[in-house]
Amino acid sequence: MSLGLVFLSEVLGTGMLTLLGCGVVANVALKGTKGNAGGFLMVTWGWGIAVFAGVYVAARSGAHLNPAVTLGLLLTGKSEYAPGVPVDVTSTLTYIAGELVGAFLGAVVCWLAYKPHFDHEDDPANTLGTFSTVPAVRSSGWNLVSEVIGTFVLVEVILAFGGTPSGLGPLAVALLVVGIGASLGGPTGYAINPARDLGPRIAHAVLPIRGKGSSDWAYAWIPVVGPLLGGALAGLFARAVPDLFTSIAS
Amino acid sequence: MSLGLVFLSEVLGTGMLTLLGCGVVANVALKGTKGNAGGFLMVTWGWGIAVFAGVYVAARSGAHLNPAVTLGLLLTGKSEYAPGVPVDVTSTLTYIAGELVGAFLGAVVCWLAYKPHFDHEDDPANTLGTFSTVPAVRSSGWNLVSEVIGTFVLVEVILAFGGTPSGLGPLAVALLVVGIGASLGGPTGYAINPARDLGPRIAHAVLPIRGKGSSDWAYAWIPVVGPLLGGALAGLFARAVPDLFTSIAS
Amino acid sequence: MSLGLVFLSEVLGTGMLTLLGCGVVANVALKGTKGNAGGFLMVTWGWGIAVFAGVYVAARSGAHLNPAVTLGLLLTGKSEYAPGVPVDVTSTLTYIAGELVGAFLGAVVCWLAYKPHFDHEDDPANTLGTFSTVPAVRSSGWNLVSEVIGTFVLVEVILAFGGTPSGLGPLAVALLVVGIGASLGGPTGYAINPARDLGPRIAHAVLPIRGKGSSDWAYAWIPVVGPLLGGALAGLFARAVPDLFTSIAS
Amino acid sequence: MSLGLVFLSEVLGTGMLTLLGCGVVANVALKGTKGNAGGFLMVTWGWGIAVFAGVYVAARSGAHLNPAVTLGLLLTGKSEYAPGVPVDVTSTLTYIAGELVGAFLGAVVCWLAYKPHFDHEDDPANTLGTFSTVPAVRSSGWNLVSEVIGTFVLVEVILAFGGTPSGLGPLAVALLVVGIGASLGGPTGYAINPARDLGPRIAHAVLPIRGKGSSDWAYAWIPVVGPLLGGALAGLFARAVPDLFTSIAS
Repeated sequence: MSLGLVFLSEVLGTGMLTLLGCGVVANVALKGTKGNAGGFLMVTWGWGIAVFAGVYVAARSGAHLNPAVTLGLLLTGKSEYAPGVPVDVTSTLTYIAGELVGAFLGAVVCWLAYKPHFDHEDDPANTLGTFSTVPAVRSSGWNLVSEVIGTFVLVEVILAFGGTPSGLGPLAVALLVVGIGASLGGPTGYAINPARDLGPRIAHAVLPIRGKGSSDWAYAWIPVVGPLLGGALAGLFARAVPDLFTSIAS
Repeated sequence: MSLGLVFLSEVLGTGMLTLLGCGVVANVALKGTKGNAGGFLMVTWGWGIAVFAGVYVAARSGAHLNPAVTLGLLLTGKSEYAPGVPVDVTSTLTYIAGELVGAFLGAVVCWLAYKPHFDHEDDPANTLGTFSTVPAVRSSGWNLVSEVIGTFVLVEVILAFGGTPSGLGPLAVALLVVGIGASLGGPTGYAINPARDLGPRIAHAVLPIRGKGSSDWAYAWIPVVGPLLGGALAGLFARAVPDLFTSIAS
Repeated sequence: MSLGLVFLSEVLGTGMLTLLGCGVVANVALKGTKGNAGGFLMVTWGWGIAVFAGVYVAARSGAHLNPAVTLGLLLTGKSEYAPGVPVDVTSTLTYIAGELVGAFLGAVVCWLAYKPHFDHEDDPANTLGTFSTVPAVRSSGWNLVSEVIGTFVLVEVILAFGGTPSGLGPLAVALLVVGIGASLGGPTGYAINPARDLGPRIAHAVLPIRGKGSSDWAYAWIPVVGPLLGGALAGLFARAVPDLFTSIAS
Repeated sequence: MSLGLVFLSEVLGTGMLTLLGCGVVANVALKGTKGNAGGFLMVTWGWGIAVFAGVYVAARSGAHLNPAVTLGLLLTGKSEYAPGVPVDVTSTLTYIAGELVGAFLGAVVCWLAYKPHFDHEDDPANTLGTFSTVPAVRSSGWNLVSEVIGTFVLVEVILAFGGTPSGLGPLAVALLVVGIGASLGGPTGYAINPARDLGPRIAHAVLPIRGKGSSDWAYAWIPVVGPLLGGALAGLFARAVPDLFTSIAS
């Protein structure tokens, strides 16, 4: 499979991810929507199914959709990202580029889908929150820890999927993301994916959104560095105990 | 398989869809029901499982249940809608006719199931909202964009299902519809299906519902044209990149 | 498989069904529980998973758990209820007896699980509602119609499961019951099962529950007759169009 | 498979379980989180998916994650806990030790993930409730009964999974735990697992949590003894009717 197709596949999948993911936040947070104040559980289902849909449309490239997943897979020592796609510098950068571009584009389409509601929104915090994560209590160190833990769980369990009898695939990832949101999303809003946060934040910065306020670049490094650390730790851990992650051994 | 059976299958499946789909809105919106004010998340699960049930009873004809799906499949260039059902003008019209008739009948049965609550309802907006979609903010252009995007996601991901390892089938569509509702249902209430909106709107117009008010025909074209455009775009897109939609190539 | 084992299997499965099903209503309705006022969506998930658990423990006998399902299967003209269990008067009565006894016992165990909360409850309507269904608006004719429709959907879709590619089995039934609850549970609280309503109502009548009030026998015939009618119609319908219900033909 | 690997597998799986499980309670209960007051249904999904994730990472050792499951399996008379792991005193103690250590460590990591929120929490009941179960109405006898019933359901249905056609595996356990929480979690908060309650309670006792209050050791025996009794009863019951639990017979 060509790297061009890998790029397109990851753009499409990560675009689906942020379109549906930012969409559910828009539905819950923005003024006058049908799902306004629909609750955190709806947000977690929205993001979970966003991953589900993204995995299906990006299945050909292995549906990383997340630089932390790409990095985690790299560090396990696997030789291929997908059938016919060797693990090397070029392919790794192709995945990450596709993820970032897709995440940006998905957020742009989400803005179009909710245009009248962005136009009516009075609170810039709701607008930014639709695009990127905002911590509940601002504390760089602990926010970073929270993102590391959340992403470690994400990548670790994904790496374990292959070693189990039941191949539920995309559904398993979807439920996992629902669970991470419900359980570990409290402190930082669970970016657990550098592209998911940075792509939409760039969209927030460049789009002509009415009364949008700051893009909060001071916080932007945490949902990038935290997930990369968490994904790396998960990959290294899985490599250290290959007997528990049999899908990696093969 | 005969076109008569295709018609019956789509009537049954789309009838199940609008019976359960309109039903969950009735339960949440109408006065004095057990699920009154049950929240938007319950609405999205209700519609998701409505599709789930509809897919099972219409499995023999491929369970389109939606003219936008039929159109999307047509434009991918497939040769058969279901085993032994060639893609041509007659079969296409048979599917669409079955979908419309089924959607109408399902809404009629929903009215019967909730008869005492329709009789007690004071707000005609709740009554119409049980049958058809009503936009949150009325804006023809953006409402259309929102329906196009929602239906593009629906048909695109359905077209991708075949290319993935896990064949969850009806469950996958159900979750996808839950997610589209949660994530993209905020602005227009996600018709994403011309039959789902038009069939029940006709039922609303002709049934002797107590104090029902207007059927809002001025808006009725948007949830027809938007989904058809979205489905068509998804079909053409999948045709343009068949490598990502391997189920289409075969 | 012996009829004694069929009986035991259905007792165990239907007992699981009403233990978990009445349990979720107790959790939402009774005073001072952890899940008090948890919402109708939680009730629908609780009953859905109650069926899920019941299907697993009663898998050997085919897990009818419901006289309306037994009657529906009988009327499709199948020759066996489960491998080695022919359809005849004795086996039919064995299923129904097991379902009723199980439903009664499950409600008794539910009462034990929530004993301190039944003891603290002040409103007899909440106590009865934990055991049996109570209509939202009392109207014999329409309540009956509502139960007929809900049970028709239940049995029809169950009969269609066999004809689809994906064999999700217990999960499919669980989701279907979640959906019927969300979509058609508004008017009567969706008994859709004579045993589920009558067994716990008998338990309510005979148990020494503190301040329990009336068992509302005037209503008791509706959640028995309605589901039986709905199940019978579904069985006859499936028999009339066997091409759409291929699992029946075999 | 070595007992060292069994131990590591159960530590990892049970750690995942209490990290995500205690995490969802933290998100709903602690001050200022994103999911604050998210409702009991979110708690049940959080714990359900906590089990789901734990089962995947502990799949190699059979993913007991719970001494009540280990005891239940022991009493069914099976000869192996997992391929190559005979049932004997040493292996049984290895499982239980891994479960307890994992449950403790998962709670510690949960505390780190929510550190700023534990620091801001004013009510010690919320802090303790994040770690361990607290009964709704304190009544030793009935609380014990409630835990026995909940765990009996858990272990009984797990033992029945093997006898059914559909091998949904981890998803089935996840849904079962969602359902037990929704249906039987009302009186005691459903420990249904001695390690899940005792491990985090020890963590609560030893961690330097700001303003944490009592660890309520007077109640601590109930969520240990109740689940062990429930699991034992389920194992013995399954052994008594092996025809209904065919997975045990083999």
